[in-house]
Order: sequence, then C-alpha cells, then structure tokens
Amino acid sequence: MNRKITFFHAPNSRSGGTLALLEELGADYELHLLNLKSGEQREAAYTAINPMGKVPAIRHGDALVTEQPAVFLYLADLYAEAGLAPAIGEPLRGPYLRWMVYYGSSFEPAIVDRSLQREPAAPSTSPYGSWEDVVHTLSAQLATGPYMLGRRFTAVDVLWGSALHWITLFKLIPETPQIRAYIDRVIMRPAMQRAAAKDAEFKAQQGG
Amino acid sequence: MNRKITFFHAPNSRSGGTLALLEELGADYELHLLNLKSGEQREAAYTAINPMGKVPAIRHGDALVTEQPAVFLYLADLYAEAGLAPAIGEPLRGPYLRWMVYYGSSFEPAIVDRSLQREPAAPSTSPYGSWEDVVHTLSAQLATGPYMLGRRFTAVDVLWGSALHWITLFKLIPETPQIRAYIDRVIMRPAMQRAAAKDAEFKAQQGG
Ligand SMILES: N[C@@H](CCC(=O)N[C@@H](CS)C(=O)NCC(=O)O)C(=O)O
Ligand SMILES: N[C@@H](CCC(=O)N[C@@H](CS)C(=O)NCC(=O)O)C(=O)O
Repeated sequence: MNRKITFFHAPNSRSGGTLALLEELGADYELHLLNLKSGEQREAAYTAINPMGKVPAIRHGDALVTEQPAVFLYLADLYAEAGLAPAIGEPLRGPYLRWMVYYGSSFEPAIVDRSLQREPAAPSTSPYGSWEDVVHTLSAQLATGPYMLGRRFTAVDVLWGSALHWITLFKLIPETPQIRAYIDRVIMRPAMQRAAAKDAEFKAQQGG
Repeated sequence: MNRKITFFHAPNSRSGGTLALLEELGADYELHLLNLKSGEQREAAYTAINPMGKVPAIRHGDALVTEQPAVFLYLADLYAEAGLAPAIGEPLRGPYLRWMVYYGSSFEPAIVDRSLQREPAAPSTSPYGSWEDVVHTLSAQLATGPYMLGRRFTAVDVLWGSALHWITLFKLIPETPQIRAYIDRVIMRPAMQRAAAKDAEFKAQQGG
C-alpha cells in the first residue's frame, strides 16, 4: 500500500512533535497547514477531519488518525524500517505503549492543572494523582536513560523530547539538569533540527 | 513466549474494563487484587509496579504496562487470535488507535472537568476544547455504529462500553437513547457479564 500521509499541521503547536517524527521516519507526506490564529481549525473543512478542531491529524488512505500518541503509534508502525517502534512481541513493546499513552492520559492533564494553578481532582477521579507523583515518575523513568526506554531511541523520545522542550520554555516543569540533558539529547538530532527549521519557515509563511 | 499476565486490579474501579477485556480475550491471567480503601496502591510493593499508585497495571514477563489504553492495546495485540484488534496494515488500525487514545487524552479530561464543574482550559492549552465538542464527537462516532469502529466489535468497545457504563451511572454524561443502546449492546455480552459477576465477587471478598 502507498504510504503517503496527509499531515494537518499548525506551526508552533503540539503538532510540531509529529512534524519531527515524520522527519525522523523519513516519511512521505503532504503538508496541509492550518492557521490557528485565523480559526481555520474550526471551519467545516477541518472539523470534517477532526470534529475537535485540534492538530495534529493525519490521513492515510481512508484512515483518519487524531490524538498525538495515536498518530505517533500509527506512523512509527507504518514506517517500521526506521526502527523507532519496538515491534509487537519485542520486550520493549509494552513500555513503549505505556509511555506513549502516559503522555496524553496522565502527564498532559497534570500540566494543564499546573498551568492553571488548579488542584488535581480527588485520587479516585484524577487520572494522575498528584503533581509530585508525576514529576517523580518522569524523573525515575529518565534515570533509566539515556532515553525513555533505556538505551534505545524510539518514537516515545520524539514525543517527550518535543513536549518537554516547550513545557520547560513555558516553565511549567522545573528544568532539572536531568530534564535539560534529556531534551538536548533529543532536539540536537539532525532530523529534529530539520523539523524545527521547517516549522520556523511555516510560521513565517503565516506571517510569523 | 508464555502469554500469562499478572493483572493488578481493584474491584469497582477503572480497572474493571481490563478485567472485561481479559475475559473477552480468553486470556490466561493471574489476579493481584488491591484494596484501594486501605491504601494498598500507595504501598511500596505496588508503587514499584506503578509509581502513580493507579490501577490497572499488568506485568507480562519483564514488561510492566500501565494506563488503560496502553494496557488494552498491549493485550488485544498479544491475544490477536480473539480478533479484537485490527492488525497493523488493516484499514481499521488507525481509527482503532485514535479512539483508544482519545478516551484517555481527551474524553477523561473532559469528564474530570465536568465532574468538578470546572471550565475547560483555553483552547490552546486544553486537550479537548469544549464539553460540547466532546459530546458531539462521541455521538457522531456512535452514529457510524453499531460499534465505535462501525460493524466490527473491537477492544475499543470494551473500553468505551465499560467507561460509559459507570459515567452514566454517575450522571456525568446525558444518557441519550443512543448512548444507552450502545452501553447495553456492549455490557450484555457473555464475557462482559462474566467479568461483572467476578468483580462483584472480588468486591465482596474485600468486605463489600
Ligand atoms: N488531545 C489532543 C490535543 C491536541 C491539541 O490540543 N492541539 C492544539 C495545538 S497546541 C490545538 O489544535 N489547538 C487549537 C484549538 O483548539 O483551537 C492531542 O493529544 O492531539
Ligand atoms: N491514567 C490512568 C488512571 C487510572 C486511575 O485513575 N485509576 C484509579 C481507579 S478508578 C485508581 O487507581 N485510583 C487509586 C488512587 O489514585 O488512589 C489510566 O488511564 O489507567
């Protein structure tokens, strides 16, 4: 099957991680840029792709995929030869799914509460418990480094490296030496740098 | 490889969905019951499994998996012969990942805000946008029914059927005829009923 992807992207947003992943995978993709400031994400043409009006989204043949961790899982399996997804049956497959999903299901909700200075919900309701749990869980996992799954660089690192990069810029998590070193290890990669340069160009195209 | 799983479960909690999935898959598992009321989930024996002190978690060989959608993805691929996971390369694989991840990354955060009567964060921060977007997105997807991915029953339905069941019990989402019919379609299945009966027994073992 043709592996060409249509990628719905907004410069300088959460979908930057997917841009980086596409570069890491050497994937064949057609870019569809959205201007979030002018509200293109809420127009009918795009809500037909994602009724939530959110990026990233990808289309591959008839399949639409939204939600960052789902998009990552899909792409890294589709371009399996890049080696960024431990295959089903490999010992790292479980941890790979765990840390991919953890990002969206536990870490982001904690970051959102943090950014609004809201208390987490009660433990029985909250998906993540306490902020301290989240920081401690991340730091314990990074300690197994150099990458999230240990010695192997995977798509999980593209997600976490990109996310921690903007999260530390917004000062939403303390920039410990451990976190700083991890971010640098990821964002210094040639494909990540290439993605960052492209994103700056896309942003300029939209008038900065 | 041996497919026996250790399943860390608390009766009457989010991990009930995983219990139902294990029954649907006919999986080989050893149960490890936790008593949330007595705080077993915060004792060192369990935080070594999941530093977040959350259920569900599973262990398979050396691999630990936490986070409901990750646990579901892992198990349904491990017991692929049950047919509850569209395989990599099948047209439904993308939507399957999308709706699995959407549950944890967008739907649960919306439900948590709703249960606390909190406003969602600003669109650029919030993972889900507005409550109306979430309800509309779910309803549009159910309209493709009878299942979340159309005609095929998958692990996504075990997740959503179980979750919507308790979410409607807590009146956190309006119980429309569409949602009610979907929940019934899922929870009436023999394996789901078997899981519910087992869970009631586990609860009784813990003193009700
Ligand atoms: N749950 C989604 C969240 C994506 C998201 O919130 N994207 C932001 C970009 S930073 C967006 O599209 N915001 C535009 C808007 O809501 O108006 C995911 O994980 O992909
Ligand atoms: N993000 C986790 C959330 C799991 C969760 O919050 N589980 C609850 C059960 S309803 C729990 O273990 N609560 C115990 C506690 O935090 O004390 C997931 O998706 O699996």
